[in-house]
Amino acid sequence: MSSAPSLNSQDIPPGSIAVIFTAQRTDKDEAGYQSAAQRMEELAVAQPGFVAVESVRGEDGLGITVSYWKSDADAKAWRDNAEHAAIREQGRARWYSTYTLYVARVERGYQWP
Amino acid sequence: MSSAPSLNSQDIPPGSIAVIFTAQRTDKDEAGYQSAAQRMEELAVAQPGFVAVESVRGEDGLGITVSYWKSDADAKAWRDNAEHAAIREQGRARWYSTYTLYVARVERGYQWP
Repeated sequence: MSSAPSLNSQDIPPGSIAVIFTAQRTDKDEAGYQSAAQRMEELAVAQPGFVAVESVRGEDGLGITVSYWKSDADAKAWRDNAEHAAIREQGRARWYSTYTLYVARVERGYQWP
Repeated sequence: MSSAPSLNSQDIPPGSIAVIFTAQRTDKDEAGYQSAAQRMEELAVAQPGFVAVESVRGEDGLGITVSYWKSDADAKAWRDNAEHAAIREQGRARWYSTYTLYVARVERGYQWP
Protein backbone atom coordinates (compact mmCIF):
# COMPACT_ATOMS: atom_id res chain seq x y z
CA MET A 1 0.00 0.00 0.00
CA SER A 2 2.89 2.31 -0.76
CA SER A 3 1.10 4.42 -3.34
CA ALA A 4 -1.26 6.17 -0.94
CA PRO A 5 -0.34 9.23 1.12
CA SER A 6 1.44 7.93 4.21
CA LEU A 7 2.32 9.46 7.54
CA ASN A 8 5.73 10.41 6.24
CA SER A 9 4.21 12.73 3.70
CA GLN A 10 1.33 14.15 5.73
CA ASP A 11 1.20 15.71 9.12
CA ILE A 12 -1.98 14.86 11.01
CA PRO A 13 -3.33 17.96 12.77
CA PRO A 14 -5.15 17.84 16.14
CA GLY A 15 -8.87 17.34 15.63
CA SER A 16 -8.36 14.85 12.80
CA ILE A 17 -10.10 11.48 13.05
CA ALA A 18 -8.11 8.24 13.21
CA VAL A 19 -9.93 5.03 12.25
CA ILE A 20 -8.02 2.09 13.74
CA PHE A 21 -8.93 -1.22 12.08
CA THR A 22 -7.34 -4.34 13.59
CA ALA A 23 -8.19 -7.58 11.80
CA GLN A 24 -7.23 -11.23 11.81
CA ARG A 25 -7.11 -12.72 8.32
CA THR A 26 -8.39 -16.17 7.51
CA ASP A 27 -6.19 -18.16 5.16
CA LYS A 28 -8.85 -18.05 2.44
CA ASP A 29 -8.79 -16.33 -0.94
CA GLU A 30 -5.55 -14.36 -0.75
CA ALA A 31 -5.81 -13.20 -4.37
CA GLY A 32 -9.33 -11.88 -3.86
CA TYR A 33 -8.28 -10.20 -0.65
CA GLN A 34 -5.28 -8.45 -2.22
CA SER A 35 -7.39 -7.16 -5.06
CA ALA A 36 -10.06 -5.86 -2.69
CA ALA A 37 -7.50 -4.26 -0.36
CA GLN A 38 -5.97 -2.38 -3.28
CA ARG A 39 -9.41 -1.23 -4.45
CA MET A 40 -10.33 -0.12 -0.90
CA GLU A 41 -7.24 2.03 -0.78
CA GLU A 42 -8.00 3.62 -4.15
CA LEU A 43 -11.52 4.38 -2.94
CA ALA A 44 -10.34 5.83 0.38
CA VAL A 45 -7.78 8.12 -1.23
CA ALA A 46 -10.44 9.49 -3.59
CA GLN A 47 -12.90 10.12 -0.74
CA PRO A 48 -13.46 13.72 0.52
CA GLY A 49 -11.53 14.46 3.69
CA PHE A 50 -9.00 11.66 3.29
CA VAL A 51 -5.62 12.57 4.84
CA ALA A 52 -3.42 9.46 5.04
CA VAL A 53 -3.40 5.72 5.61
CA GLU A 54 -0.90 3.20 6.96
CA SER A 55 -1.43 -0.54 6.80
CA VAL A 56 0.69 -3.41 8.11
CA ARG A 57 0.10 -7.14 8.21
CA GLY A 58 2.27 -9.63 10.07
CA GLU A 59 3.17 -13.20 9.21
CA ASP A 60 0.49 -14.51 11.59
CA GLY A 61 -2.23 -12.73 9.61
CA LEU A 62 -2.92 -9.99 12.15
CA GLY A 63 -3.16 -6.60 10.48
CA ILE A 64 -3.59 -3.01 11.58
CA THR A 65 -4.75 -0.28 9.22
CA VAL A 66 -5.07 3.29 10.45
CA SER A 67 -6.76 5.82 8.18
CA TYR A 68 -6.84 9.52 9.03
CA TRP A 69 -9.67 11.87 8.08
CA LYS A 70 -10.20 15.62 8.31
CA SER A 71 -13.47 15.27 10.21
CA ASP A 72 -15.82 12.73 11.74
CA ALA A 73 -18.34 13.50 8.99
CA ASP A 74 -15.67 12.50 6.43
CA ALA A 75 -14.99 9.24 8.29
CA LYS A 76 -18.71 8.45 8.41
CA ALA A 77 -19.13 9.22 4.72
CA TRP A 78 -16.32 6.74 4.01
CA ARG A 79 -18.04 4.15 6.21
CA ASP A 80 -21.24 4.69 4.21
CA ASN A 81 -19.58 4.56 0.77
CA ALA A 82 -21.57 1.89 -1.09
CA GLU A 83 -18.61 0.09 -2.66
CA HIS A 84 -16.78 0.17 0.68
CA ALA A 85 -19.82 -1.40 2.34
CA ALA A 86 -19.97 -4.15 -0.27
CA ILE A 87 -16.27 -4.99 0.21
CA ARG A 88 -16.82 -4.95 4.00
CA GLU A 89 -19.49 -7.64 3.58
CA GLN A 90 -17.04 -9.77 1.61
CA GLY A 91 -14.47 -9.24 4.37
CA ARG A 92 -16.84 -10.62 6.96
CA ALA A 93 -17.82 -13.56 4.79
CA ARG A 94 -14.38 -14.58 3.57
CA TRP A 95 -11.28 -12.69 4.66
CA TYR A 96 -11.53 -11.94 8.36
CA SER A 97 -12.13 -14.16 11.35
CA THR A 98 -12.33 -11.23 13.79
CA TYR A 99 -11.85 -7.50 13.71
CA THR A 100 -12.17 -4.40 15.85
CA LEU A 101 -12.58 -0.83 14.70
CA TYR A 102 -12.06 2.21 16.88
CA VAL A 103 -12.74 5.80 15.85
CA ALA A 104 -10.62 8.30 17.78
CA ARG A 105 -9.95 12.03 17.65
CA VAL A 106 -6.29 13.06 17.38
CA GLU A 107 -5.17 15.28 20.27
CA ARG A 108 -1.44 15.58 19.58
CA GLY A 109 1.35 14.01 17.57
CA TYR A 110 5.09 13.69 17.15
CA GLN A 111 7.30 12.87 14.21
CA TRP A 112 10.87 11.65 14.40
CA PRO A 113 13.34 12.69 13.21
CA MET B 1 3.45 -9.95 21.63
CA SER B 2 0.67 -12.44 22.21
CA SER B 3 0.96 -12.52 26.00
CA ALA B 4 -0.39 -9.02 26.62
CA PRO B 5 -4.10 -8.17 26.78
CA SER B 6 -5.25 -7.74 23.20
CA LEU B 7 -8.30 -6.20 21.62
CA ASN B 8 -9.97 -9.58 21.53
CA SER B 9 -9.97 -9.75 25.30
CA GLN B 10 -10.66 -6.12 26.15
CA ASP B 11 -13.36 -3.75 25.03
CA ILE B 12 -12.12 -0.19 24.70
CA PRO B 13 -14.67 2.26 26.12
CA PRO B 14 -15.27 5.75 24.69
CA GLY B 15 -12.99 8.27 26.36
CA SER B 16 -10.02 5.87 26.39
CA ILE B 17 -6.75 7.08 24.89
CA ALA B 18 -5.20 5.35 21.86
CA VAL B 19 -1.47 5.86 21.27
CA ILE B 20 -0.70 5.06 17.64
CA PHE B 21 3.00 4.41 17.04
CA THR B 22 4.03 3.86 13.41
CA ALA B 23 7.73 3.10 12.91
CA GLN B 24 10.12 2.02 10.19
CA ARG B 25 12.76 -0.40 11.43
CA THR B 26 16.37 -0.22 10.36
CA ASP B 27 17.98 -3.58 9.63
CA LYS B 28 20.30 -3.22 12.64
CA ASP B 29 20.43 -5.24 15.86
CA GLU B 30 17.35 -7.43 15.53
CA ALA B 31 18.18 -9.40 18.69
CA GLY B 32 18.52 -6.25 20.76
CA TYR B 33 15.32 -4.89 19.29
CA GLN B 34 13.30 -8.02 20.05
CA SER B 35 14.52 -8.07 23.61
CA ALA B 36 13.67 -4.39 24.11
CA ALA B 37 10.25 -4.78 22.47
CA GLN B 38 9.40 -7.60 24.84
CA ARG B 39 10.58 -5.58 27.82
CA MET B 40 8.56 -2.55 26.66
CA GLU B 41 5.43 -4.65 26.55
CA GLU B 42 6.04 -6.03 30.04
CA LEU B 43 6.50 -2.48 31.31
CA ALA B 44 3.37 -1.19 29.57
CA VAL B 45 1.16 -3.97 30.89
CA ALA B 46 2.35 -3.26 34.44
CA GLN B 47 1.69 0.47 34.12
CA PRO B 48 -1.39 2.03 35.81
CA GLY B 49 -4.25 2.59 33.38
CA PHE B 50 -3.03 0.12 30.76
CA VAL B 51 -5.95 -1.42 28.82
CA ALA B 52 -4.64 -3.30 25.77
CA VAL B 53 -1.98 -3.30 23.07
CA GLU B 54 -1.76 -4.60 19.51
CA SER B 55 1.46 -4.65 17.52
CA VAL B 56 2.14 -5.71 13.94
CA ARG B 57 5.27 -5.54 11.80
CA GLY B 58 5.37 -6.28 8.08
CA GLU B 59 8.13 -7.83 6.00
CA ASP B 60 9.28 -4.38 4.85
CA GLY B 61 10.01 -3.35 8.45
CA LEU B 62 7.07 -0.98 8.84
CA GLY B 63 5.29 -1.55 12.13
CA ILE B 64 2.20 -0.20 13.85
CA THR B 65 1.66 -0.54 17.60
CA VAL B 66 -1.51 0.81 19.19
CA SER B 67 -1.69 0.92 22.98
CA TYR B 68 -4.90 1.85 24.78
CA TRP B 69 -5.05 3.66 28.13
CA LYS B 70 -7.80 4.54 30.55
CA SER B 71 -6.90 8.25 30.58
CA ASP B 72 -4.56 10.79 29.06
CA ALA B 73 -2.79 11.08 32.42
CA ASP B 74 -2.08 7.34 32.24
CA ALA B 75 -0.69 7.67 28.70
CA LYS B 76 1.53 10.57 29.79
CA ALA B 77 2.77 8.63 32.83
CA TRP B 78 3.73 5.80 30.47
CA ARG B 79 5.56 8.27 28.21
CA ASP B 80 7.46 9.54 31.26
CA ASN B 81 8.34 6.10 32.65
CA ALA B 82 12.14 6.22 33.05
CA GLU B 83 12.90 2.78 31.60
CA HIS B 84 10.53 3.48 28.71
CA ALA B 85 12.36 6.74 28.02
CA ALA B 86 15.73 4.95 28.03
CA ILE B 87 14.50 2.34 25.55
CA ARG B 88 13.03 5.11 23.38
CA GLU B 89 16.49 6.68 23.16
CA GLN B 90 17.93 3.37 22.00
CA GLY B 91 15.14 3.14 19.43
CA ARG B 92 16.13 6.49 17.95
CA ALA B 93 19.81 5.60 17.95
CA ARG B 94 19.59 2.09 16.53
CA TRP B 95 16.27 0.53 15.65
CA TYR B 96 14.15 3.12 13.87
CA SER B 97 14.81 5.26 10.83
CA THR B 98 11.54 7.20 11.20
CA TYR B 99 8.45 7.13 13.36
CA THR B 100 5.26 9.00 14.07
CA LEU B 101 3.19 8.91 17.23
CA TYR B 102 -0.39 10.15 17.50
CA VAL B 103 -2.39 10.36 20.70
CA ALA B 104 -6.14 10.14 20.10
CA ARG B 105 -9.28 9.89 22.22
CA VAL B 106 -11.60 6.99 21.40
CA GLU B 107 -15.10 8.13 20.43
CA ARG B 108 -16.72 4.82 19.41
CA GLY B 109 -15.86 1.27 18.49
CA TYR B 110 -17.11 -1.92 16.89
CA GLN B 111 -16.17 -5.54 17.26
CA TRP B 112 -16.90 -8.30 14.80
CA PRO B 113 -18.30 -10.86 15.15
